[in-house]
Amino acid sequence: MNAGLQAQLRAAAQAQMAADSAHDIAHLDRIWANAQAIAASHHGIDRAALCAAAYLHDLVNLPKDAPNRAQASALSAQAAMPLMARLGMAPPSMDIARHAIEAHSFSAGITPQTPEACILQDADRLDALGAIGIARTFLVSGALARPLYDAADPFAQKRPLQDGAFAIDHWPIKLLRLPQTMQTDAGRDMARARVAVMRQYLAALAAELGQPVPQNWGL
Amino acid sequence: MNAGLQAQLRAAAQAQMAADSAHDIAHLDRIWANAQAIAASHHGIDRAALCAAAYLHDLVNLPKDAPNRAQASALSAQAAMPLMARLGMAPPSMDIARHAIEAHSFSAGITPQTPEACILQDADRLDALGAIGIARTFLVSGALARPLYDAADPFAQKRPLQDGAFAIDHWPIKLLRLPQTMQTDAGRDMARARVAVMRQYLAALAAELGQPVPQNWGL
Repeated sequence: MNAGLQAQLRAAAQAQMAADSAHDIAHLDRIWANAQAIAASHHGIDRAALCAAAYLHDLVNLPKDAPNRAQASALSAQAAMPLMARLGMAPPSMDIARHAIEAHSFSAGITPQTPEACILQDADRLDALGAIGIARTFLVSGALARPLYDAADPFAQKRPLQDGAFAIDHWPIKLLRLPQTMQTDAGRDMARARVAVMRQYLAALAAELGQPVPQNWGL
Repeated sequence: MNAGLQAQLRAAAQAQMAADSAHDIAHLDRIWANAQAIAASHHGIDRAALCAAAYLHDLVNLPKDAPNRAQASALSAQAAMPLMARLGMAPPSMDIARHAIEAHSFSAGITPQTPEACILQDADRLDALGAIGIARTFLVSGALARPLYDAADPFAQKRPLQDGAFAIDHWPIKLLRLPQTMQTDAGRDMARARVAVMRQYLAALAAELGQPVPQNWGL
């Protein structure tokens, strides 16, 4: 991979970012670091495509409640094409990056077909887990003025889970289940280690609230 | 303490709350729980005063950057008086609660003179620590669109700490130092245990970022 490409992709992505503490340039740097860590156990990965996919996957970032949110990945992939062309990337690498970006998100509903697409999806999901995932859960909830938990029933033992209403409900609904959705062995191992950090956090939170750790949250 | 008083104080506080995930009714419930835990090792505590102080200490909650923020505690104490009178509280209890509310915050610069005031200050500071404190740091930062850390230097090894710019910088500047400011032995013990939870979190965060844990953050 051309030595300057990562810096150029990073600068191009940064120029288009909105103010969002959970999707800032540091998020993109982490995705790229995660992607490289996973790629280390794969052969024949197109690093330029992977780097472009990492830095450009969120070019179009629609709010959680936007009606066309399922199209954000397709729109990001589309917006990435002229940008990659301007940086002189080879057309086959551009195609690999485009598919990886299109397939990276849950809401797109597209199965990743290439190793690069599998790696990007895992790298992005890893950033929702661990100490980083803990912080990002609450950064997003704070921006939406969403409470940490239901004061009447913090761990939803007597009500349905509602991740639109309470920050912590997002964990059993989605985040604690992510290891099962990982596409690569390396990604799955990293995901499991990060979920262990979240379980430790949940145990500390439950203790501070004088509540038992809910059995059915330990997925 | 009159059996219905806690419910009445809670309802009165809830009626006046703005949407703020770090200062919601659950925050007040936790302060009251913390206050009772600390009060368990003290004799002669005025429970009604302590309960009123816990639920009414944030009646006037000014933004972090408001010019009159140092007066928020005095304004809350003032607003609490007619509310306590309406609930039929005894005037000596009302005075104890008023002083505790006035003295509870850093910015007020008032030394707590009574056991109830010491307990309220510790109970409130405890809520900035531990798993709850971790969540509240990021809820507040998300609401302000403040990034989690400086992408160029996450743990401020080559720059001054700036807690107005980066969420995590608030920990070494203020939160990790809180155990030293506690007024009661029970509060200090609880604060130390909660800081240990935050240090564990910092270690996991640093590992995920591929950075060493900064030595000078382990205060």
